[in-house]
Amino acid sequence: MNPVSNIILPEPTLRRLPWYLAYVEILQKQKIEFVSSTQISRALSVDASQIAKDLSFLNIKGKTRIGYEVDALAEGLADFLGFSQCHRAYMIGCGSLGKALIRDSGLSKYGLEIVAGFDIDPNVVSRTDLGVPIYHIDRIYEIMEENPASIGILAVPSGMAQESADIAIGAGIKAIWNFTPYRVKVAEGIVMANTSIYAHLALIFNRLNSLER
Amino acid sequence: MNPVSNIILPEPTLRRLPWYLAYVEILQKQKIEFVSSTQISRALSVDASQIAKDLSFLNIKGKTRIGYEVDALAEGLADFLGFSQCHRAYMIGCGSLGKALIRDSGLSKYGLEIVAGFDIDPNVVSRTDLGVPIYHIDRIYEIMEENPASIGILAVPSGMAQESADIAIGAGIKAIWNFTPYRVKVAEGIVMANTSIYAHLALIFNRLNSLER
Repeated sequence: MNPVSNIILPEPTLRRLPWYLAYVEILQKQKIEFVSSTQISRALSVDASQIAKDLSFLNIKGKTRIGYEVDALAEGLADFLGFSQCHRAYMIGCGSLGKALIRDSGLSKYGLEIVAGFDIDPNVVSRTDLGVPIYHIDRIYEIMEENPASIGILAVPSGMAQESADIAIGAGIKAIWNFTPYRVKVAEGIVMANTSIYAHLALIFNRLNSLER
Repeated sequence: MNPVSNIILPEPTLRRLPWYLAYVEILQKQKIEFVSSTQISRALSVDASQIAKDLSFLNIKGKTRIGYEVDALAEGLADFLGFSQCHRAYMIGCGSLGKALIRDSGLSKYGLEIVAGFDIDPNVVSRTDLGVPIYHIDRIYEIMEENPASIGILAVPSGMAQESADIAIGAGIKAIWNFTPYRVKVAEGIVMANTSIYAHLALIFNRLNSLER
C-alpha cells in the first residue's frame, strides 16, 4: 500500500488520476486482472506516455507485456489520492446546496467526512434531521475544540462568502472548498479549491444556444 | 435587455462572467448604483483590461468616470449567461448525489429546471417525494415526447456513465453535465461539461497533506 502523497502534484495530474481510478474500478468489477497504459489510453483518450508519467508519481510499476495489476492500481490510486483516508470537514452554509452536499453520502466514499454544519438561520441551526449537528456560525471556535475539522465547504450566499471563509479560517480551517460563484481570497498557506457549478452552467447554456442558432 | 449570447464564448470568459455577476449582485444589495472595472478588478483580482474585454461581449458600455450601471450590468450578465432563461434538464441517476442536486433549489435560480429523474433501481423509480417524477431509464424516449429536456445531468455510478450518456443522447439530449469521475465520450455536436468533484477533493487532500509535512 502506498502512503498518501506528500508531493505537491500538478493540477492536471490531479485531474487525471481520478479518471484512471474510475476506470480501473470498472475493470475490477469486471474481474479483469491486468491493464496496460495503452488500454487506459484508448478508454480515456489520454496519451499513453502521459498516463505512464502520471502513474510514475505512485510507486506502482507496470510489468512489460502484462501492464498494471488492476487491484494494486486501484488501491494505490485511492490511497495516493487520499480517498481511503478520512478528512474531516465543516459545511459552512446549510441552505439548499449545503444540505444537499451533507446528504450526499458519496463524498464519504472518497474520504470526505462532513462532521458538522454551520449557518446563521435559527430554523436551520435547530435542525436535527441532517445526520450531522448544525450550529450557529458564532460557535465555530468552540466546536473546533470538541469536534475539529480541516476543510470548510463554502455553500453560503455570495455576499457572505468572503466573511464566512475568513471566520472559518480564523477558527482553524486549513482548506476552503468554495461552491459559491464569489471569488474568495485567502492568505497564502490556505488551500483553496473552487467548484464553479455556475460557470459550468454558463458553459452549457452558451454552447447549447450556439447549437440552436 | 440583452438576448442570451449566440456567440461561442471562450471558456475562461465563461468562467469569469459568473464572478462578475456574483460581485455586482452583492453591490445591488448594498444599493450601490455604479461600478468601475477598476473596482471589479480590485475585488476579484482580475486585470481591469480583461474585465473590459470580457464585458465587451455584452452590449453594455461603461460610462467614462462613472463606470457601469450596477442594475443594468447584473441584468445584462444574467441574461447573457442564460441564467434568466429556463433550461430543462433530466437527472440521470437519482442516487445520493442525484437526489441532492434535485433538491438543490439553487440551480433553478440560475436557469436550470430539473423536470424529471431517471434511474434503474425500482426503489428509486417509485419515489414521489423528490418534487419531480422519477422514471425507469427505459422510459426516457417516451418521456422525451411528453416532457422534453435538452440537458442530461449525469450522476450514475462510473461503470454506467458512458452507457447512460449514450441512452440519454439517443433519446434527444443535447448536453451532458457529467458529475461522475468517468470520462464520458460524446459525438461532436453534443455539449459536454465535467464537474470534477473528485478531482477537486484530490487537489484539496494533496495540498493539505503537503502542508502537514
